[in-house]
Formats: sequence, structure tokens, C-alpha cells
Amino acid sequence: MNVDALITNILESYKDEGCINLEDAHNFPNRQNVIDVLQEILTLLFPGFRTMEQFDQDNLPYITGMRVNRIIAGLTKEIQKSILYICNIKGIGKTACAKLAETPSLSLIEAIPEIRRKVILDVRAALREDPAANNMEEIILSYPGAEAVAVYRIAHFLHTSGVPVIPRIMSEYIHGRTGIDIHPGATIGESFFIDHGTGVVIGETTIIGNNVKIYQGVTLGALSVKKSEQSVKRHPTIEDNVTIYAGATILGGKTVIGAGSIIGGNTWVTKSVPRGSVITIS
Amino acid sequence: MNVDALITNILESYKDEGCINLEDAHNFPNRQNVIDVLQEILTLLFPGFRTMEQFDQDNLPYITGMRVNRIIAGLTKEIQKSILYICNIKGIGKTACAKLAETPSLSLIEAIPEIRRKVILDVRAALREDPAANNMEEIILSYPGAEAVAVYRIAHFLHTSGVPVIPRIMSEYIHGRTGIDIHPGATIGESFFIDHGTGVVIGETTIIGNNVKIYQGVTLGALSVKKSEQSVKRHPTIEDNVTIYAGATILGGKTVIGAGSIIGGNTWVTKSVPRGSVITIS
Amino acid sequence: MNVDALITNILESYKDEGCINLEDAHNFPNRQNVIDVLQEILTLLFPGFRTMEQFDQDNLPYITGMRVNRIIAGLTKEIQKSILYICNIKGIGKTACAKLAETPSLSLIEAIPEIRRKVILDVRAALREDPAANNMEEIILSYPGAEAVAVYRIAHFLHTSGVPVIPRIMSEYIHGRTGIDIHPGATIGESFFIDHGTGVVIGETTIIGNNVKIYQGVTLGALSVKKSEQSVKRHPTIEDNVTIYAGATILGGKTVIGAGSIIGGNTWVTKSVPRGSVITIS
Amino acid sequence: MNVDALITNILESYKDEGCINLEDAHNFPNRQNVIDVLQEILTLLFPGFRTMEQFDQDNLPYITGMRVNRIIAGLTKEIQKSILYICNIKGIGKTACAKLAETPSLSLIEAIPEIRRKVILDVRAALREDPAANNMEEIILSYPGAEAVAVYRIAHFLHTSGVPVIPRIMSEYIHGRTGIDIHPGATIGESFFIDHGTGVVIGETTIIGNNVKIYQGVTLGALSVKKSEQSVKRHPTIEDNVTIYAGATILGGKTVIGAGSIIGGNTWVTKSVPRGSVITIS
Amino acid sequence: MNVDALITNILESYKDEGCINLEDAHNFPNRQNVIDVLQEILTLLFPGFRTMEQFDQDNLPYITGMRVNRIIAGLTKEIQKSILYICNIKGIGKTACAKLAETPSLSLIEAIPEIRRKVILDVRAALREDPAANNMEEIILSYPGAEAVAVYRIAHFLHTSGVPVIPRIMSEYIHGRTGIDIHPGATIGESFFIDHGTGVVIGETTIIGNNVKIYQGVTLGALSVKKSEQSVKRHPTIEDNVTIYAGATILGGKTVIGAGSIIGGNTWVTKSVPRGSVITIS
Amino acid sequence: MNVDALITNILESYKDEGCINLEDAHNFPNRQNVIDVLQEILTLLFPGFRTMEQFDQDNLPYITGMRVNRIIAGLTKEIQKSILYICNIKGIGKTACAKLAETPSLSLIEAIPEIRRKVILDVRAALREDPAANNMEEIILSYPGAEAVAVYRIAHFLHTSGVPVIPRIMSEYIHGRTGIDIHPGATIGESFFIDHGTGVVIGETTIIGNNVKIYQGVTLGALSVKKSEQSVKRHPTIEDNVTIYAGATILGGKTVIGAGSIIGGNTWVTKSVPRGSVITIS
Repeated sequence: MNVDALITNILESYKDEGCINLEDAHNFPNRQNVIDVLQEILTLLFPGFRTMEQFDQDNLPYITGMRVNRIIAGLTKEIQKSILYICNIKGIGKTACAKLAETPSLSLIEAIPEIRRKVILDVRAALREDPAANNMEEIILSYPGAEAVAVYRIAHFLHTSGVPVIPRIMSEYIHGRTGIDIHPGATIGESFFIDHGTGVVIGETTIIGNNVKIYQGVTLGALSVKKSEQSVKRHPTIEDNVTIYAGATILGGKTVIGAGSIIGGNTWVTKSVPRGSVITIS
Repeated sequence: MNVDALITNILESYKDEGCINLEDAHNFPNRQNVIDVLQEILTLLFPGFRTMEQFDQDNLPYITGMRVNRIIAGLTKEIQKSILYICNIKGIGKTACAKLAETPSLSLIEAIPEIRRKVILDVRAALREDPAANNMEEIILSYPGAEAVAVYRIAHFLHTSGVPVIPRIMSEYIHGRTGIDIHPGATIGESFFIDHGTGVVIGETTIIGNNVKIYQGVTLGALSVKKSEQSVKRHPTIEDNVTIYAGATILGGKTVIGAGSIIGGNTWVTKSVPRGSVITIS
Repeated sequence: MNVDALITNILESYKDEGCINLEDAHNFPNRQNVIDVLQEILTLLFPGFRTMEQFDQDNLPYITGMRVNRIIAGLTKEIQKSILYICNIKGIGKTACAKLAETPSLSLIEAIPEIRRKVILDVRAALREDPAANNMEEIILSYPGAEAVAVYRIAHFLHTSGVPVIPRIMSEYIHGRTGIDIHPGATIGESFFIDHGTGVVIGETTIIGNNVKIYQGVTLGALSVKKSEQSVKRHPTIEDNVTIYAGATILGGKTVIGAGSIIGGNTWVTKSVPRGSVITIS
Repeated sequence: MNVDALITNILESYKDEGCINLEDAHNFPNRQNVIDVLQEILTLLFPGFRTMEQFDQDNLPYITGMRVNRIIAGLTKEIQKSILYICNIKGIGKTACAKLAETPSLSLIEAIPEIRRKVILDVRAALREDPAANNMEEIILSYPGAEAVAVYRIAHFLHTSGVPVIPRIMSEYIHGRTGIDIHPGATIGESFFIDHGTGVVIGETTIIGNNVKIYQGVTLGALSVKKSEQSVKRHPTIEDNVTIYAGATILGGKTVIGAGSIIGGNTWVTKSVPRGSVITIS
Repeated sequence: MNVDALITNILESYKDEGCINLEDAHNFPNRQNVIDVLQEILTLLFPGFRTMEQFDQDNLPYITGMRVNRIIAGLTKEIQKSILYICNIKGIGKTACAKLAETPSLSLIEAIPEIRRKVILDVRAALREDPAANNMEEIILSYPGAEAVAVYRIAHFLHTSGVPVIPRIMSEYIHGRTGIDIHPGATIGESFFIDHGTGVVIGETTIIGNNVKIYQGVTLGALSVKKSEQSVKRHPTIEDNVTIYAGATILGGKTVIGAGSIIGGNTWVTKSVPRGSVITIS
Repeated sequence: MNVDALITNILESYKDEGCINLEDAHNFPNRQNVIDVLQEILTLLFPGFRTMEQFDQDNLPYITGMRVNRIIAGLTKEIQKSILYICNIKGIGKTACAKLAETPSLSLIEAIPEIRRKVILDVRAALREDPAANNMEEIILSYPGAEAVAVYRIAHFLHTSGVPVIPRIMSEYIHGRTGIDIHPGATIGESFFIDHGTGVVIGETTIIGNNVKIYQGVTLGALSVKKSEQSVKRHPTIEDNVTIYAGATILGGKTVIGAGSIIGGNTWVTKSVPRGSVITIS
């Protein structure tokens, strides 16, 4: 079989699979574009730590202005594609659909000062809790937990604004880089600290309070994973000031870890525990 | 000690280590080249989801034709290097060795429609099993498990064709990006789904049936890791329709998980279990 | 609210956060620059395996000379920034501070032959211990454990030389790529082998002997993580010839794993064990 | 005056100049895009001489197909902009205007074999006439005259098809690279050879027969350059087999150089000369 | 002789030539940097015609602000190098010298609106005078004469501000691209038009009035080129409304072409001619 | 006619033209590669003026060594292609042909110190003769005449070494950038100065002595351009200390301009003139 015939076979196979239709390809958000916009948003949060461009007080306003305009344009373009695609499924008209795409990127830009405030609280929590941390700069420059939580805060904002697919592309991108898998639908309070982080999984309907600290390999997951339970709260609630050590597994939508509890390493928790509990493996 | 003297020392150290001879360096497959070819193969599988080039029905045949020719050329070049290196060790002549390098890249191209069919079945399994999944496009665009299994299917094809080193470079590349470590030698059936995935290890002689579902942190490993057992089946067999929850460890070449079994989270399994078993931590 | 107003808000928020002062931004080491230098050091270790440039015995001395000069210049520049920043905090003068930056990069270059020797021993250990490994080249080209340990040896050298922040950026970079998190402060002997590796955490004050072998998901961590214990030995000591299987957790600064012990998978160890112990989950 | 004020001044000056309105900027053909398309067309003419891509009989059809599609897309996009701009001035509607843009790029592609035939005749003429020329390849690879005439043949085709601005951008591009200024409106026969070429000017209404040869610094220009004579034939007619030596100036729309004439170097000709004339400076 | 010996010879030859001392190399303006800044200034003049970035009324202020800051930084850096070099020769101290470098780039930015005004007048003159010109946009996009005069106006501004070397690098850059060689020291009035342009030379002490029009191959040169006459007016004066046709040569510092004169093609003029003269070759 | 049919036509036209056979395409020197090597050789001549890399006394030897090795490899590769092509025509065997390609690049490297010496003499001549020149650095950085003569000296060396095609590609490249067209076969003495330069043509068999100075638009050409006279001296001889002003034309292989002569602007010389002549237009 010669190469031209092999190429024809592949082209045929593109036509066969009706459900993954090439015609629609232009309407999908482009993964790399989404990651590029995300990088630019992270740079907007901490320009002094990430940018390669030289800047000072003179050109910072212009750099920031260009960056904001670039984020709005790039993000709106990808949201339009993600919305159009949903609209086609749901039967919403093109113009009404386009209108929907404009709002979330502007809202995100409006929320940047608030997101910065929260991310700085997260960084301060890391500095307070990790004996190996020397200063805030080191954390911003090198801690994967801090980066994963910052991306979560951006992705969560867009998820809450009803943007489909894109928040998930963002969270899976940082999952790939840090091994920390936080679903953008999760609700996480202030001053959240993840140490080491590899293998952490935080499910879609998890609720986490303030000042919570978790270590590598912690799963906040579902007991049951039936497709029919898609809209049910399937993941646990973690109240304020809880610490969860490495490898602990906490499962179930009705499981509540009471405020101030300490969940030991490698534990397996599928029922609620009251405030101030200390759970360890026996 | 001045810098020139330090450089001379380093050059000396290159000569000292006989076993890592610079002279041979030209014959090693280049890691980055292998990754570039892999990316192009992934784009060949789903052009609408990954490519940055604009395409439509008019130019898709030409783009596909160029891509296929580029894959054949690039892959053959790296296989030639990997084969030559083995040949030198095994004493096979240069011409006979070069012949061996031509076949696997053509076979891989011939197998693309079949690999597409399997990868689409894997994506459908993810859509069916994950309550958080909304549609196939989201899975292809963002699920690390889907990407890791797709790379496994490519690397496994080359491994089965007798290509050395290159399948391993591919599987370690996607291991780095997803935390999912599937040895290209493993045998995996259809409709395979890995959720979250970080920390999953699937050993070289593992056999997995159809419709198997596994979660993050699952190890399908060896009980004994003696070098002398290199050619023995060291890793377990997982039959059809098995689900293995997060953190479970299943070890041993004679360990068989019977069809339809459910292996609970954080369990430790070193013996076979019959069909339909449900194993949980006590 | 129009976009210009939103931009002004962001600019205001940059001023508000006194602790993350833009004025200082020029003094931080740049993360990407540090990673670029690290890549070049890794290429210096194994030029035949990583470089894209064509080289032979004729131009290798010139390539090596240029590379060494480029490493010294690039690394010194980043160290100067990291030192200046600490100096400002500690009140050391600019000139004295600059002097401090010159030494560590030259020392690192001087140590390259010794680092190569150790990294080759690590690779040999992998070849000896992993039944799936076919030859040294495959390990250097594809094993994440080998790469993570090589980066550790570079970062540890700089950490020991008193360089702040930069070793941590290096170790978190490779943590992101391999899921293996080795603090640059840890002390690790010769012929060290990490298999699979995802989820491995090795804490700052860990001491590891020669010929130690560990698997994915192993934590060598602290029992207590109070900020006040920053200068105390918080992580365990692992003596020569110990093997630690997947998912084992060993905690505490006074915990010593005696020489030749085998720590089974998923075990939880918080007390010392004598030489030759075999610990398994019951 | 501070920098922000200076920037504001520049922004004001953008608004002042009504005739060069920023709002229209999106509608202008982009000079660099036009040059990129021109380069691609030249590569289509002689793929073996210009392309950096490796090709052979296997992938040439795909490369050519992609190149043709890319040329059509890129050229049509720029023509649309150039047409829209003229349409706005002339009051032609948007849809009618868009239709006009589709035809010329397809026609150009259809004409490529004919353009190749003519360009090869030009190259053969150079080989026949220049004692310093050794073979056709040398001429295609290095002769500026051959490149300038090839670009003229492309630009002239588009000019004749009624495409505005773009042919002129092409001819001024090659004017910049070769010092040869041929207006795309000129009419030039087969087997045309320009030697050295710097300073050659061939005006818009010039008519040149077959087998004409001209040297550096030759002007085929207008006697009068009144704007009101825009649609009059202002430049000379050169019949078949004429040779014009370096620095000769031939002016006027009614000036005809009879077939087979030789016009000597540095001559000044403003009147017709009969067939077979030999004109030299006295 | 082996390659290492040849390299040593070249290194020796670097030391031999005292007058071209490598030690000083860091102090020379870098040719490519100067050209990059020039391109950016040209884009500042006509953003709608040259920029590849997408812009609109929203982000134009930010793009302009960034561009201006980038021009100031880049130009000042090159001026500092050019000034330092002169200072070393003239014995001016480093700090005084650095001060001198700050002013000209700010002045140039301040002059941009005025330079724009003049360049637009030049473009209008081309539109008025050239029968082949259809509109202003075509001229800005494609006429080499317009580009050469725009670069002259920028280079002349810097020359007048006392910046050494850099104006000359700019004028030789555009000389290379257009064949039009205007010394930055020349004085040129408003509404200046050069048609075709290849081979035009305008000397350092030339003075040209308003509404002057010249064609390709015109030389405005010196009669005598003795080094001792460096500070003397060596080149002609061209009064208002003069037209000079192709190939004319006008020489001498005392030669004045009276207002409204017409100088015919290929003429040789070394003496003054009164207002309204018409000079042709006999 | 659809696009696929148009593409097929173009592919057909590639087959039709037997004389420009695609099969041979791999054997042609690549124009861009030749220009890249030329740029690197120019940087080798004056590293302080052209290189973007930062260098100092420490890394200059390594940079120079790498550059020399890169030049030898790149140039030899292109020469091999140019030689192979000639060999095929002349019937010389492949191995003998390959041998021929090795020598000229090594010889060129050996000649670099001598070429530097000559180029520095040319620069000194420019400084001595041009009233507008302020210092050697300005000339090296900006004078097109100096660059064109430097390229001539490199191309002439290769031409003299019998390398086909490549010297011509080099000379036409710099012709395009400067408007100065010096055939690599011309023989030019020391301290040669070309001012302004646009339109200068120096033919293949021209002989020029020492301390010669020429201006823009000067032609040193042939009286007769019959193909049959390919091996005859067709261009003039210019003895020592001659000055030739702008636009002068000197033609004929037997024409000798005696030492110390001055040839005025726009003159037409086709006969020899004795030593010390002063020729002007009457």
C-alpha cells in the first residue's frame, strides 16, 4: 500500500466519525490560545515576577493597558467560540450568543484587583505555614501550590460567569504543570495553602472554608460517580482552619470536616467529623 | 583556577567516562525530535482540535499529505538512529539495519484510522463515566487521561513493532505532562478511562481488558523487581469492566482482577480476586 | 465602567500592596532565566544527549567554552539579583553584596566533573535496579527520576553555596515536569534511584545514604510543621542500601531507617527501625 | 514637557490629518503580507531553487497544493482590502466588491504554467547574451535582472486583471532589492534580458517587443509628466531585437525604436528611429 | 596547518590592528538596533500603514505609549554609545557625556507631529506631480522616494541635534533599500518629491527649497572633494519650485539653481543659473 | 476549472521543462545558506561591529572558534553542491569531486588575517578621501562602499580558488543591498574606495591598481558583449592612483587609464589615456 493510499484512508476516517466533525473545528476554543491568555492574566497579577519586558513607572501604565486590551480581545474570541458551540446545541441564535461572550472578559478584568487581594492572602498563608518558606517572593516565584490556586481563582471566576470549556482547559493546564487538579467549579475560601501538591484532587462540588491547609496526594472526591448525579453535591465540605495531611482521602457530598479539625496522613474519611476532630490512621 | 582550566577539566571528564562516549552521540534518537513527531501524530489524529493552521475541505488533503510525509521522514530518521545503536550492540550490518527502520513508520501511518477509532472509544468512555464531563470536545481539549491514553496507543504500536527507546521517550514525555506513567509495553483494551490520573503507574507486562476505569494514584505494579526477571510477566491482569478507585495498589504478574470487579480506594491487592468482587479497605 | 477605568483600578492595586513592591521587581531573579541556565547546565553534563547543535571532536572544545562562559554570565546575573535582594533585607552594602555573587557560579563550573561522576553513578543504579531498563542511554534520554536527581545535585550544590531562591526555582521547575519534589537542602548519597517518581516528596532536612532506591508516591516528610521549627531537623534519615516501595510515608526528624531495610508500599512509619528491617502493611 | 504629554500630542496629530484616517487603516493592503505572498509565488515558479523545505517526488504534490491554497487565501485577502478601498471611493457596494476580489488570484494560479514558460525564456535569453553567464541555474540563483523581470510578469498579470495598489507594492519591493524599476503597467515581450540593471526605469505605458536587451541605468521615460496626461501613452515603444546600452535615455510616448536597432550607452533619444538604426553619442 | 592554528591566527590579527580595538566594541552603536528603532519611528509616523499589530481606538493610546517609551529607551541607549565614543576622543567626562544623550530622543518624540506634517506634505507633492500615482495611500505603501525622504527627515533631526554616527547609519540603511543617498546634513524644504530615485545623491551641505522635484540618477555633489574642505559648503543650492530631470549632475557649493528653473535630463551643471532657467543637453 | 486541476497543471509544468529538473534541486547551492555564511564571515572580520552576542576577552576565543567551525561546515556544504553540479556536467567522479570541495573553505579561513588587512586599508582610504567621514568606525558601520568591497574580497578569493556559482551569489547579494555590482572575477588592488556607489558596475576582467577612487554610476564595462568572447579580457585596466567621478563610462579590454589620471563625471572613454590625464566632458 503506497503512501498516497494511506493518506486517503486517513482522510476517509475523518469523514466517518460524524460526532467529531471537521466542519465545526473552527468553533472550538483553541487550547494554546487559552493557555496564552491565561499566562497573560497571571502576568497581570504579578508583573514584577513574570514579565520579560523591562518596565518602570513610566511605561507600566502603557504596558498594563496593552496587556488588558490584549486579554479582553483574546479571551472574548475564545469565549465566543465556546459559547457559539453551546448555543448551537441549545438552539440560541447567533447574535444573542455573541452578546453573551462580551461580558465575562470585562468582568474578569474588573475583578483583577479582588483576585490579586485573594492571591496575596494565599501567598501569605504559605509564608506563615511552611517552615521552608523564607519570603513572599520565593513563594510567588517557585511554589506550584501558589500558582495552582491562582489559576483556580481565575478559572473559577470564569466558571461562575457561565463560561464553558475554557475554565476546564485552564485547570487542566495547571494540573499538567503541578499535579494539582482543582475543578474550576469548587468553592474555596481565603488564605488557602497547598504544600508540595502533587496528586491533590479537589472535585467539582467541594466547598472549602478559610485558612485551610492541605498536603500532597489529598483527594476531596466523590463516593459515587454515576453520570445521573451530575447536578448533585458529590464532594465534601471542609470548614475553616482545617489541616489535611498527605495522602488523606475524604469522600462524599454529605461529608463535612468540622472547623479546626486535623485529618492525618493516609486516612480514609467518608463520614462527617465534628469541629476540632483529630483523625489519624490507627 | 581560571575559567579556561575549568573548561579543560570538563572536556577531560567527557573523555574519562568510556561508557558514555561522545563519538556515539550522533546515533542517539534526539528527545526533542521525537516529541515533535509525537505532537504531529496527535494533530493527525484530531486536526480540528490542535492545529493552529487554518484549514477547510479545500486544503485539508494537502495539509494531511504534507503532515504524513513529514511524520514518515522525521520518525524514520529517529528510528534509524535507535536501530543503528541496537544493531551496533548486536552486530547487525548497516544496510540490514537501515532496512529495518523503514517499516514501522509506514505501518504506524497505515494504523492511524484504527488508532483514531480506539481513541474515540476511549473519549466516549470518559463522557459516559465522568459526571463532570459535558461533551466529547471538552474531553479531547482538556482531559489529561485522554491524552495519556492516546500517546500510549501510539507508543504501544511502535513498541510492538520492535522500535527501541523511542516509545519510552514518548511515554515519559506524557508522564511528565500528566503524571500518568503507562509503560508502552502494557496491553490495554478498548474504552479505557483514567480520571484525574496523577500518580497512575501501569507496568510493562500489565494486561487490561475492555471498559476498564481507573482513578488517580493507582499502581498496577510488580511484587518483585529483580533484574533477572526482566522477561517474566511481573504486572497484574485486569479483566473487562473493572473499576479501580484512587490510590489502589495491585501487584504481581499472577494477580488477576476478575471481570466486573470493583477495587476500592487505597486498597492493597497482591492476590487474584474472582469475577464480580468488591474490595474495600476494612 | 469603561476599560480605561478598569486599567486604572489595576494600576491602583499595584500601589496598594506595599509588600509586593513594583520598584523592587528588577531585583528578583527571573524564573525563565534560571530555567534557561539550568537547561544549559544539564546540556553541559551530557552534551551528546541533549544538544541540537551539531558537534564533533573539532568544535566540542569551542562549544563547551562558549557554554561555560554563558552559564557563568547568566547564573551570576541571577545570583546577583537574589543576593542583592537578601542584602537589602539584611543591610549588607552593594559592593560587598556583588562580590558574594561571583563565587558560586565559578564553583559550580569547577564541580561539574564531580557532579557528572555522581549523576553517572545514579544512572548506573537505575540500569542495575530496573528490569525495564535496557541501557544507560535510554535512562538518560527518558527517565524522569534520573533527570530530577541530576537537577537536585545542581540545585543542592548552589543551596550549599548559600545561593537563595534560585535552587528552589530549579527544584520546583523539575517538580513540575516530573512530579518529584526534592528540596535542594536535602542530603543525598551516591547511586540514588527513583522509579516512576510521581508524588515523591523529600523534605529539606532529609539525609539519605548510598544505594537507596525509592518508588512513586514516597514521602520523606515532617511530623510537625511549625514555623518555629524552621532550623530543626524535621525530616527522616535513610541509611545505605534501603529500598522504599510506592506510597510509603516516613515522617519525623528523629526517624532513622536502618541500613539495608525494606519499607513496603503504602506503609506509615514515624519511628526509627533497626538495620535490616522489613516493614509491610499488615 | 513630560513624556505622557508628548504621547498625547502624537495621538492628537493622528486625529488632525483627516486625509490619512486611522479608521480606514484596516482596509489597506499590508505591505509585508503582499511581499510574503510574492515570495511564495516566486517559490511556486522555481521550487527547486528557493525553498528551504526538503521535498521530493513524494511530497511535492502536497507541498504545491498547500502553497497554492496559501497563495490564493493570502492574495485574495489583500486584494479584498485593495478593492474595498477603491469601491468606497467609487461607491460600489460591499458584496459586489467582494465578488471582484475572488477572480484575480485564481486567474494568477491558472496562469502560472504560462508565466513559468515566459520566465524560462527570459533566463535562456540571459544565458545566450551574457558572456559571464555559465548556466541557467546560476542565472536563476543570482541574477537580479531575472528576478526583477519575473516579479514584473507576476505584477503585470495582476495589474492587467485590474488589481489596484498590490502590483505596485510588488514592483517597488523588487525595485528596492535590485534597483530595477519596472512599472507593472508596462507591456514587455518574450526573451527580455536586463544586465546589471541598477538604475533601469521602465515607465507605465512603455511597450517592449521580443528579444530586447537593456543594460544598467537605461531610462524608458516620459517627456512630459503632467498629471492631466495620466491616461495618455507617455513612454516609448521598443520593437523586437533592440539592444539598449548602459545609461541611455529614451523619452516620449510617440518615440519608437525600430526593430533590430542598437542604442549606444549614455545616448539621449526623444525621437523615433527606423529599423536597424545604430545610435551612439557623438 | 590545522583549524585550531587558523583560529589562533585570526585571534592574533584582532590584536594587531590597534586602531580597531575590540575593547571599545561595546561602545559602538549597534547597526541592527539603530535600524530597529528607525522602523519603530516610521511606524509611529503612520501606524495604520505599517503595523502588524491589530489596533483600534481603544488600544491605540496604549500601543502608542509603549512604542514611544520603547523608542526613547532604545534610541537613548544607542546615542549614549555614540556620544561616549566621541567624548572619549574629545576628553569629556562620563557623567557630562551621559547627560548629553538624554535630550535628543525626547526632542525627536516632541517633534513627531511636526515631522508627520512635513512627511504628509511630501506625500501630497508626489500625488500632485506623478501621473502614475492614484492616491496617498499607494504612495505611503509603495513609493521608495517617500520612504527615503521620511527617513531623511528623522535622520536630519538627529543630525541637527548633534547626534553622531546614528543619523548616518539610518541614511545608509535607506540608501541600501532605495538607492537614494541623502546625507543627513542636507537642508531640504517642504513638499519635496523624488521619483523612481535610484542613484540620487544629495550631499552634506546641499540646500533645497520648497516644492522641488527630482528624478532618478540626479547628483547634487561637490566639485572638489578635498578632506581639508570638510567644513566648507561643497554642494549646490536649489531654490523653490525647481525640477531636475533624470541623470542631471549639479556640482559645487557656490552653484545656485534659481527658483522655478527646469534642469533637463543628463545635463552637467557646475555654475549658477538664474530664476526660471531651462537647461537641456544640446 | 477548480483549484485541484490548477495544481495538477502546475505539477505538469514542472515535468515539462527538462532543462530545470527538480531531481537536481538538492544539488544546487541554497542562496539563503550562502548569504548566511557570508554574514558570518563578515562578522569574523569585524566582530566588534556586527555581532549581537555579548563578548569580551574571556569568551572571544570560544566564539571565534565556534564561528570558524560553523563557517567551514556551512561553506563546504554549499561548495560541495556547487562542485557536484559542475562535476556532473564535466563527468568527474563523485569522490574526486568531494575532495575538491574541502580545500577552499579552509583556505579562506587561512586568508582571513590577510583579508582583514586589506579591508582595513580600504576603510583607511575612505577616511582619507571622504570629507564627510569622521572616523573609521562610522565607515565600517555605515558605508555601503566599504561593505561591497569587503564582500568582493571574500567572493574574489573563492572565485580565484575555482569555486563556481557561490561567489556570484555573494556579489549579487551585496549588489542588491548597495547597488554596487563588482564581478568576483575582477582584480582590485589595495586601498580601494567607492563613494555613494549606487549604479557602479565593475566587469569580470577589469584590473584595478592601488589607491583608486570611484564614485556612483561609474561603469567599467565591455565594448562588445558577444558570448564567443567569454574568455577574452573585455573590461578596462585602471592603474594606480586614478580617480573616476560619478557617471563616467570606461569600456573595452584594451582600454588602459594611466596612473594618476582623473576621469571626470559623465565622461565616455573607450580608448586608453596616458599617465596623469585629466578627462572631462567638453
